[in-house]
Amino acid sequence: MGINKYEEIAQAAIKLFERKGYHATSVQDIADEVGLQKGSLYHYISSKEELLMKITQQSINGFNRRMEKIIESQVSSKDKLILAIQHHVTYVARNMEMTTVLLREAFSLEPDHHKVIKEETDRYLKLWTTIIDEGVQADEFKPGDSRLIALAILGSANWLHRWYQEGGKMTPEEIGNYFAQIFLEGIKK
Amino acid sequence: MGINKYEEIAQAAIKLFERKGYHATSVQDIADEVGLQKGSLYHYISSKEELLMKITQQSINGFNRRMEKIIESQVSSKDKLILAIQHHVTYVARNMEMTTVLLREAFSLEPDHHKVIKEETDRYLKLWTTIIDEGVQADEFKPGDSRLIALAILGSANWLHRWYQEGGKMTPEEIGNYFAQIFLEGIKK
Repeated sequence: MGINKYEEIAQAAIKLFERKGYHATSVQDIADEVGLQKGSLYHYISSKEELLMKITQQSINGFNRRMEKIIESQVSSKDKLILAIQHHVTYVARNMEMTTVLLREAFSLEPDHHKVIKEETDRYLKLWTTIIDEGVQADEFKPGDSRLIALAILGSANWLHRWYQEGGKMTPEEIGNYFAQIFLEGIKK
Repeated sequence: MGINKYEEIAQAAIKLFERKGYHATSVQDIADEVGLQKGSLYHYISSKEELLMKITQQSINGFNRRMEKIIESQVSSKDKLILAIQHHVTYVARNMEMTTVLLREAFSLEPDHHKVIKEETDRYLKLWTTIIDEGVQADEFKPGDSRLIALAILGSANWLHRWYQEGGKMTPEEIGNYFAQIFLEGIKK
């Protein structure tokens, strides 16, 4: 029950932070959303900052966890990159509000917390450059700047949180496949 | 003098909105930054919202203006796309704080203002899909979903505002060229 209530509070916070922004959301707003007195809410959380930290951490951990499995899988670098792009695109599309909070609001975290999130996002970027570097070594990809390539792909995939709409003509999986095709083959005839 | 002071206020607002966020920045903060009393600041601006609107409008107008010139230029679609990517990347890199305010804070605008910015960003996206559609018709690009391709490119180029650092090993022009190459040729060998 305690855990469910906490999860309910976190979900309410994600929704409010996404819609109104972190700074414009008060602890009172969150209490109202879950039907608690502000005093009772503090039995579950110590601060709004703590909630933002938990949400951003959960979000970046979700990105990292699956990516680590992809890195370890026994497939070609090309297939790893396709899986990675599919993963990132579908994770954004299925967690739109949480991704928006991570990408737009993490800068509001206190320096110590922000540092933790920064380290996790750096680790995520490193997993991407590893796949690309391995692909170059395996002669599957052209020699290039793996960090810039990873940042180009991540930018495209992150941007989804600004335009993706459920029920559109393409599923997240189809968008992921299409993005993978663009980055692998290019658009020039 | 009035215009210069207004410009100084706008610059201070861009800096503060970028660093602290729009909601966390008070009119008092802006007044302090330019060395005015809060009451005097209101001789120049009517509200914080007005400042955010002017800043986001200036930003999206900058993106649109050059893009319209590129569309009209007498070069191949491939060269237009290269110019467009170079333009977007360099504009982000040279206006990092203003781009961050546009991309991260525009959602805080009042609905009427937000609608204007949304229309201008839609117009910008349309300029991109036009180049891509023309390139497909001219047999320069593979047939494809021009909106998705444009969103992929814009995502990559926008993301620069999160990682670009002046004085890095590549100039904005070089990054733009590299991104253009990735999107045109792909990374697969």
